[in-house]
Amino acid sequence: MVPTSEPGDSLAEPPVVRALRDALPGGSVLSDPDQMEGYRYDRAMTVRPGMPVAVVRAASSAEVQATLRIASQFATPVVTRGAGTGLSGGSAAVDGCITLSTERMREVRVDAAAMVATVQPGALNAEVKAEARRHGLWYPPDPSSFEICSIGGNLATNAGGLCCVRYGVTTDYVLGIEVVLADGRALRLGGKTIKDVAGYDLKRLFVGSEGTLGVITEATLRLRPLGPPLSTVAATFGDVVDCGRAVARIMAASRPSALELMDAAAIAAVERVRPMGFEPGVGALLIGQCPVDAAEGAQLAAACEGCDATYVAVTDDPDEGELLMGARRMAIPCVERLGTVLIEDIGVPIPSIPALVGAVAEVATRTDTMIPVIGHAGDGNFHPLVTFDPTDADARARAELAFDEIIEIALALGGTITGEHGVGSLKARHLSAQLGSDVVELTSTIKRALDPAGILNPGKWV
Amino acid sequence: MVPTSEPGDSLAEPPVVRALRDALPGGSVLSDPDQMEGYRYDRAMTVRPGMPVAVVRAASSAEVQATLRIASQFATPVVTRGAGTGLSGGSAAVDGCITLSTERMREVRVDAAAMVATVQPGALNAEVKAEARRHGLWYPPDPSSFEICSIGGNLATNAGGLCCVRYGVTTDYVLGIEVVLADGRALRLGGKTIKDVAGYDLKRLFVGSEGTLGVITEATLRLRPLGPPLSTVAATFGDVVDCGRAVARIMAASRPSALELMDAAAIAAVERVRPMGFEPGVGALLIGQCPVDAAEGAQLAAACEGCDATYVAVTDDPDEGELLMGARRMAIPCVERLGTVLIEDIGVPIPSIPALVGAVAEVATRTDTMIPVIGHAGDGNFHPLVTFDPTDADARARAELAFDEIIEIALALGGTITGEHGVGSLKARHLSAQLGSDVVELTSTIKRALDPAGILNPGKWV
Repeated sequence: MVPTSEPGDSLAEPPVVRALRDALPGGSVLSDPDQMEGYRYDRAMTVRPGMPVAVVRAASSAEVQATLRIASQFATPVVTRGAGTGLSGGSAAVDGCITLSTERMREVRVDAAAMVATVQPGALNAEVKAEARRHGLWYPPDPSSFEICSIGGNLATNAGGLCCVRYGVTTDYVLGIEVVLADGRALRLGGKTIKDVAGYDLKRLFVGSEGTLGVITEATLRLRPLGPPLSTVAATFGDVVDCGRAVARIMAASRPSALELMDAAAIAAVERVRPMGFEPGVGALLIGQCPVDAAEGAQLAAACEGCDATYVAVTDDPDEGELLMGARRMAIPCVERLGTVLIEDIGVPIPSIPALVGAVAEVATRTDTMIPVIGHAGDGNFHPLVTFDPTDADARARAELAFDEIIEIALALGGTITGEHGVGSLKARHLSAQLGSDVVELTSTIKRALDPAGILNPGKWV
Repeated sequence: MVPTSEPGDSLAEPPVVRALRDALPGGSVLSDPDQMEGYRYDRAMTVRPGMPVAVVRAASSAEVQATLRIASQFATPVVTRGAGTGLSGGSAAVDGCITLSTERMREVRVDAAAMVATVQPGALNAEVKAEARRHGLWYPPDPSSFEICSIGGNLATNAGGLCCVRYGVTTDYVLGIEVVLADGRALRLGGKTIKDVAGYDLKRLFVGSEGTLGVITEATLRLRPLGPPLSTVAATFGDVVDCGRAVARIMAASRPSALELMDAAAIAAVERVRPMGFEPGVGALLIGQCPVDAAEGAQLAAACEGCDATYVAVTDDPDEGELLMGARRMAIPCVERLGTVLIEDIGVPIPSIPALVGAVAEVATRTDTMIPVIGHAGDGNFHPLVTFDPTDADARARAELAFDEIIEIALALGGTITGEHGVGSLKARHLSAQLGSDVVELTSTIKRALDPAGILNPGKWV
C-alpha cells in the first residue's frame, strides 16, 4: 500500500483533492508529486505529460463513481489509466487532471458454464488468460504486451495482437460492460448473452473510446475453447513484393492463427542481438501459424513457395515454433537498443502491403532514419519503428518528419493511422485527415452528448 | 418500372410529396395508395402499419440525401425499408411517413484482392453471397431468409443466422459504411482496412439501429475464403435437459459451423408435413455441422452420446446433411401452416437453455397455445413460435399473453428480448425492461444528438 500524504498537507491542497480525500479514505488518493510521477507517463516516449493534481487508485466501481462525481463538480479533467503500457499517450496526464488508476481493481471471475470471464479493468490481460485457462478456456486477444498490459487499457484502445487475424480483436469478445459516465452514473450494457440486438450497440461505442466517453469498471468477456496446437511456417523472400503476394494468397485461402511480417531492417535488428542465421539479402520474413492437424500448414508453405519464397521451413514442434515467433516478438526490444523508437501503428488494405513497405523504405532513405517494419500482415496492420538518437536534435526532427510522412502514406493507400494502439496524443493531429470534417463533427456530437463538460481525457483527440 | 401518379394529381398532393416529386424525377416517388400498399407491411403479421404519405424508391445515395433533406424540411417521418422481410415491424409504415425503399439500390462490387464486397443496401443477402462466390469468396451471415432479405435490412437489424455460432453476425463483417444522416449529409465511416481504431466505432452504432439514426446507403463487407465442406451430426434426446447439456459440452470444446435445436413440438410440426421417421417420445433434436476434415464431427457426436442422446447419426455427405438441416429450415413454414405465428427471438446464456425451453413448454400448456421452439442453440438464441388461430380472438389474446411471458422468462434468465430480428414495433414495449432507465436515457441522448427532430423511424422503440 502506498502511503497517502500526511493529513497536515490537506490545508494546502486544492479543494478538489480535499473532496477526493474525504470521499475516498484508505489510501486511494495520492497528491505527492514524487508518488504521482510514475502515473504521469505511458510508453509513448515522445509525448510530454502534464502534472496531475491527484492520482486516485480506485478500489471499486463505487470509488470510480465518487471520483467522477467530484471531478464533475469541480470541472476537473479525468485521465483514466490502466497499467500505463499504452503506446500513444492516451493515458498521459494533462495538467491539473485527476489521474484515475484502475490498478487495484483486478478481479477476474470465470463462469465456465457460460464461457465468460467477468473482469475488472486493472486485471492484466495475462491474468485473464491464466484464469480462463484454469477453467480449460481461452481469452484470445494478445497484444505483444499481454503480460504487462491491463484489460481496461485493452478495452479503451480496442487492442489487437498477433492472433487477431483468425480470432478477432478485443471488441469481438465484449458481451457486456459496466461503465461510469462523466456524471458518475454507472450503467450496465449487455450481459452474458452471445447474440443481443436490443437497442444500440452502446458497449462498442465505449470500447476503443480511450477514456473520452466513460470509465469501464467491469467487462464480461466471451471465452473460447482452448486453441489447438500450432504449426509454424517461416518463409523468407528476396523482396517485400513477393512477401505481400504470399500474404494475399494465404488470406484468400485460409485464416491463419498468426501471420507476421518483418522487413530486411527488422530482420537485421534482431540478427544483431540474437543471430537467427539468415543469409544476407533477405528482403522479408513471413512467419505464419495455423492448427497442426489441419491442412493449412502445408497450404501456407505452398503459398509462400508459389510466391517465390527463397526459403521455407515448417515445424509442428511448439518449441521450435515459439523460437521462430520469438524472433518477431523480440523485434521491438531489439530495435529499442538502437535508439528511441516512435512506434507507428498504421493499417492498409492487404493488396497495398508491398506499396506500404516500399514507401516506408523510401522514407527511411530520404530522411536518413532507421525504420524497421514489423506487422500483423494478415490484417494489414504494421508497426514501422521510427528509430532515432534521442541526443541528436536533428535526428529527432527527421524522425518526426518520417513519422508524419508514413501516416500520410497509409492514408493515401486508403488505410488508417492506428490499427490497434489508439490515437492518444501521438496521432491526434492526424485524426481529422483520416475521418474528414463531417465525421469529426459527428464524433464531437457524440462526445458532447455523453460528456457535456468535457472532463474525460480532454485535449487528446476529441 | 412502376408508373408514378399522373402529373394532374400533384395539385391535391401534400407539399412534402410535391417537393419529393420535384427533387426526384424518374418514377422514384409513389403516392397512390394502391401502389403504396405493399410497402406498408413487413412480416411481423400482428403489427398494424400506418399509411405513408409517399414511398420513395431511391435510385442512389444522392436520392436518399434529397429525401432526408426534404423530410427534415417538412418534419416528416422517414421509415427506411429494404426487402420488407423483417419480423419485428421495424420497417412497418407510420402514418404520414415517407417510406424510403432501397430496393432499387442493388449494386454489389467485389474487390477480390482486398477480400471485400462494397454493396448497396437493396442487394439481397443471397446476391452478395453469389457475387462473392463468383470470386471464390464467401459472405457468411445467413439469416434463414437470406434468399429474400436485403443486406440493408441485415445491417439495420445486425442480422444473424445459422452460421453465426462459428462465423459471427452481420456487424462482424462491416469494415465501412456510407450513412446519410437525418439532415441529409452523407458520411463515410471506416473503409477497407481490417483493423482500425481511429476514433469511435461509429459504424457499429448505425449497424443494428433499425433506421433510427441514419440510412446506410453503402457498406464495405469483409469476405472470407470459401467455407469448408461440412459434416452433419443429428442427435435426438429424451428431454431438452440432456440436449442442453450436450450444447454446453460441444461449445466448451469447439465452435461448430451450426448448432440448431428443435423441441418436441417443432419436430412434430415438421413430421406432420415432411415425415422424417422420428420415434414418438423424442424430446429434442440437435443438428450440428462442422468442417469435414477436422476431428470435430466425431467430438460433436461423442458429446451428444455422452449426454444420453437416444440416437446419433453422422454424415459427411453434403446432400444428406442438407436433408437433415432442411428439416430445421422447414420448421417455420411448417408451423405457419397451423396458424398465425408470433416469432420470438429471445436469447439466454448457454447454461440457461434447458430452463428456457422447459419454461416455454410450461407457458404453452398454461396458455393452451402451441409454441414449438427452434433455435440457434450454440448462441443461446431461440425462436419460440407462438402459434394461434387468427379467427379466434380468445386464442389470439392467449398467444399475446404467452409471447409476453416468454420475453419475461428470457429477461429473468439474464437474456435478451431479441437476438437477431431487432426490436421493431413488436418488442418495443419490452425494451426498457431489458435496458433499464439509465440505458434508455443514454439511448435517447444518442438519438437526440443524431436526429434532433426525431424524424427517423419514430414511434418504434427509441
